[in-house]
Amino acid sequence: MAAGNLSPDDLTIDNLTPHVIKLSSNIENERLKFVFAKLIQYSHDFVRDTKLTTAEWEAAWQYLTEVGQFCTPDRQEMILLSDVLGISALVDAINNPTAPRATESSVLGPFHNDAHEFEIGQSIASKGAIGEPMLIRGTVSDTNGTPIAGTSVDVWETNGNGFYDMQDPEKDEPDCRGIFHTDEQGRFALVGVRAVDYPIPYDGPVGVLLRLLNRSNIRPAHVHFVLQHPECGRLTTALYSHDSKNVALDPVFGVKKSLIKQFAWSEDTALAKKFGIDMLERVGSSGKKTVGFWILEHDFVLMRK
Amino acid sequence: MAAGNLSPDDLTIDNLTPHVIKLSSNIENERLKFVFAKLIQYSHDFVRDTKLTTAEWEAAWQYLTEVGQFCTPDRQEMILLSDVLGISALVDAINNPTAPRATESSVLGPFHNDAHEFEIGQSIASKGAIGEPMLIRGTVSDTNGTPIAGTSVDVWETNGNGFYDMQDPEKDEPDCRGIFHTDEQGRFALVGVRAVDYPIPYDGPVGVLLRLLNRSNIRPAHVHFVLQHPECGRLTTALYSHDSKNVALDPVFGVKKSLIKQFAWSEDTALAKKFGIDMLERVGSSGKKTVGFWILEHDFVLMRK
Repeated sequence: MAAGNLSPDDLTIDNLTPHVIKLSSNIENERLKFVFAKLIQYSHDFVRDTKLTTAEWEAAWQYLTEVGQFCTPDRQEMILLSDVLGISALVDAINNPTAPRATESSVLGPFHNDAHEFEIGQSIASKGAIGEPMLIRGTVSDTNGTPIAGTSVDVWETNGNGFYDMQDPEKDEPDCRGIFHTDEQGRFALVGVRAVDYPIPYDGPVGVLLRLLNRSNIRPAHVHFVLQHPECGRLTTALYSHDSKNVALDPVFGVKKSLIKQFAWSEDTALAKKFGIDMLERVGSSGKKTVGFWILEHDFVLMRK
Repeated sequence: MAAGNLSPDDLTIDNLTPHVIKLSSNIENERLKFVFAKLIQYSHDFVRDTKLTTAEWEAAWQYLTEVGQFCTPDRQEMILLSDVLGISALVDAINNPTAPRATESSVLGPFHNDAHEFEIGQSIASKGAIGEPMLIRGTVSDTNGTPIAGTSVDVWETNGNGFYDMQDPEKDEPDCRGIFHTDEQGRFALVGVRAVDYPIPYDGPVGVLLRLLNRSNIRPAHVHFVLQHPECGRLTTALYSHDSKNVALDPVFGVKKSLIKQFAWSEDTALAKKFGIDMLERVGSSGKKTVGFWILEHDFVLMRK
């Protein structure tokens, strides 16, 4: 009887894993073979170790289906899931070992998107954009201190209400994001808004998960950067506001000490004029009214290839 | 400076995992806490062990997004992914330990769906359904041999072309599936078609994966069953054709020796008449023409609660 075709033993809790790995190893690409063998091993070990119930397995595939179906060109819920499980931060740490002096990396997050190119000094915030003006400027150099001209500096941030342009259903043009190129001295400068602490979206499956785990969804205020130059590796990073109360509990684990910077208050009228910044009135910590704008400065250091 | 809020050390490849687990353990449900701690641990261990690259991570979330977006009420691609990775078979094995004498379980698969209720002996195949007629019958009893009357027997199978009704875009009524109830002697009987070996769908992301891994997508011919009775556990199982060449390479790992049965040829005219079966002409293995129909018989044994 043809049942003799069946492998000598029935597949059981103990022998199923090597069988699936074997059936999946008939490929030439050694890396692919290795990664899939490990994927099968670790996922099976997880199921065995937890004695995952049928109901939990059903909840898992239903949940992953919902996450996939929630994704749109403007909303990448699967990245967000990877983010809140710390997987993105781990992949980032593994793939971006930092040389001494070089700027550390941080997570990309789900809100990177296409952006317009700008000239140095221009504003990435549209006319009516909500938020307090912030000058963002600095330099890009290599680990020897040599400026790197022509580095592409891709910047994006929330508005002053904590929303990215992609989260505004009425906005079909990029806002609070733009691409700049460093000048001969490796400098860049732009006007944006003071990024604020904001909740990662609670309206989808990842929000459900965070509530289930009783976890915060508030990211500390930050500005995203992707720096690229042909002679250097691509650096995805972010600068975090020093005075945010949420740096230690970042739900996506992106904060590193070296990336925490002062979002400083400046009263430099000449500087404001140079960049066309409308200064605003504000009551400082001393209780005194001042007129000024925010400024975030950072000198990025890239590793040459 | 408020950076003092940050945990004493930066998050690194080595300390990220316990940090994410700790942040996810502020919940009362001990089982949930345990499962998520293990999920974080195993997924991080996989990433660390493989030194997963950024490109591989991107491919992973893009792939899972595609799988989720491919799902419709008639097509559960996420279950199919779980199936081909052997996860479904493992969950099945863990959750359905079989008592001696009891019928073993098998994977549910992605094609279970709502079905009409039928009287014993009726046909689940519509008038024009493609395929050779097969009488499917048997009994349901407990491990002591006592018949279990009133057991719900939910049966589904492909037609003779290897397609489930859900895969036919022109079909909006169930076909080749139905729900029966055993009589006082624990018996059930129905007319269907002879299930055939069939390819699990190659047109979606799971098909891409199987081709990438150079794996077969042909399932051995089988008939699915879900048996339910208030006094017994729910049994999800299937009966596989003894003469399929694909029993040893089942891409979803559902075959067990005890579930391999003869799809037998019968020339019993009285039986055909009793069930209203149109007999068909067929050239047997001896080269002689015969007139008859197929028959699949099995006596299921359920464990009482």
